[in-house]
Amino acid sequence: MVSIFTQIIEGKIPCYKVAEDEHFIAFLDINPNAKGHTLCVPKVEVDKIFDLDEETYIKLMKFSRKVAIALEKTVACKRVGVAVVGLEVPHVHVHLIPLNEMKEMTFSHKVAMSSEEFIALATAIQKNMA
Amino acid sequence: MVSIFTQIIEGKIPCYKVAEDEHFIAFLDINPNAKGHTLCVPKVEVDKIFDLDEETYIKLMKFSRKVAIALEKTVACKRVGVAVVGLEVPHVHVHLIPLNEMKEMTFSHKVAMSSEEFIALATAIQKNMA
Repeated sequence: MVSIFTQIIEGKIPCYKVAEDEHFIAFLDINPNAKGHTLCVPKVEVDKIFDLDEETYIKLMKFSRKVAIALEKTVACKRVGVAVVGLEVPHVHVHLIPLNEMKEMTFSHKVAMSSEEFIALATAIQKNMA
Repeated sequence: MVSIFTQIIEGKIPCYKVAEDEHFIAFLDINPNAKGHTLCVPKVEVDKIFDLDEETYIKLMKFSRKVAIALEKTVACKRVGVAVVGLEVPHVHVHLIPLNEMKEMTFSHKVAMSSEEFIALATAIQKNMA
């Protein structure tokens, strides 16, 4: 059974895509802690981030930085926070979360967004990916 | 006024040091989410992680990976989680948190440790920094 993220990467499950290159994809979290909450995922299906080889790990962090800078340009926030947890989906994912308050880092505070809002936000972030 | 982390780096405030090189320091968080909760800090005092130049950011993430791998060898946990928040101390710091449960990522669940426990743990992690 492949992970839900591999199914997204393979196009079997839709996503609100923000960025993609040969090795990584970024899309909006559909149960966001805050508007703009984005997941950056390597196409290789590895469970734990520190089990990635150093080269892939560094490329993932570079990719995540580019997405974070585009997020900061798009979403009003004090800063973009980072979280890597992985206790639920066993496929590495870097959470990028536009932060205004600490509660947005806790994964218990969630915001509701319509499909139209997700599409408009993903499009706006894509445009800021220089 | 320099940050509390710069005061630690300059040796004006003590810490339970885990690792240090020319550009970065890692020490135990004294109000840990879980045993082994470690902060990785660049010696340059910059507020937001994505304001670091790419080279310094990548070096920080490489340094943090080495510390995380030593933490995984030292502390019983399902995995080491990562968080970068920064709403309190305006000096970049990467939280590395040995995780067994989601609540350890929330920054509201805290564990008490004695000085002796901090010293023993920091020493054990240092030894696993290959």
